[in-house]
Amino acid sequence: MNLTHIEHLGIAVKSIEEQMPYYEGVLGLKCFAIEEVADQKVKTAFFWVGQTKLELLEPTSEDSPIAKFIEKRGEGIHHIAFAVPDAGEALNEMASKDIRLIDKAPRKGAEGLNIGFLHPKSTHGVLTELCDCKDK
Amino acid sequence: MNLTHIEHLGIAVKSIEEQMPYYEGVLGLKCFAIEEVADQKVKTAFFWVGQTKLELLEPTSEDSPIAKFIEKRGEGIHHIAFAVPDAGEALNEMASKDIRLIDKAPRKGAEGLNIGFLHPKSTHGVLTELCDCKDK
Repeated sequence: MNLTHIEHLGIAVKSIEEQMPYYEGVLGLKCFAIEEVADQKVKTAFFWVGQTKLELLEPTSEDSPIAKFIEKRGEGIHHIAFAVPDAGEALNEMASKDIRLIDKAPRKGAEGLNIGFLHPKSTHGVLTELCDCKDK
Repeated sequence: MNLTHIEHLGIAVKSIEEQMPYYEGVLGLKCFAIEEVADQKVKTAFFWVGQTKLELLEPTSEDSPIAKFIEKRGEGIHHIAFAVPDAGEALNEMASKDIRLIDKAPRKGAEGLNIGFLHPKSTHGVLTELCDCKDK
């Protein structure tokens, strides 16, 4: 497995708008994209910190996985995404090592990148995404 | 505020030893240090991923903050640490912006770095550490 860096860190939030004073005003980060990912029922906002992005995830529906996460655990860090050269190959390698997959094949995530999630039962509670590396 | 990158990501685990087959065997990362931080009642294990470290945190006592975290929420991502040029100055700047601090002044964390935690009530549920940047 060739994990080049942490591509992004997903953070579950109730409202992106309400978080802006903290991420931009207090932390001094700059939001460079806001995007809706319809099939995940989330709106996302991105900020660079070094070679990693913070991805705020706001649910757009009550049955969004992010809405359920916030209901159960409150706002906070939701998942870690490792950059890999090829998400499909990386998922296959994970399966060959008996890692349970949420996504058996890559799908399009935010920013049009190929992504796939591993099951937290196989990753000791850390919801983990593998994500094609686009830059940095 | 000048956050240069994500210095590390803290992950609460019951046992570092039990996690090694996943982090080294499956993810292919290399543990480069294991260290006990007595005043936090944790044992830590570090792995580089790009410019960020993963820091596994194993409680060494039942009253360790990490033991309490695991009891309440299970194993998983515990905190994010941003690299700053000077943790003391960064904490002062946070206080001036009405951010509640856990550490009003820097203290020594793992690897002998000056660190300080912000209170999650002020960071929308994301337990956040500011950490002197040593390298990368």
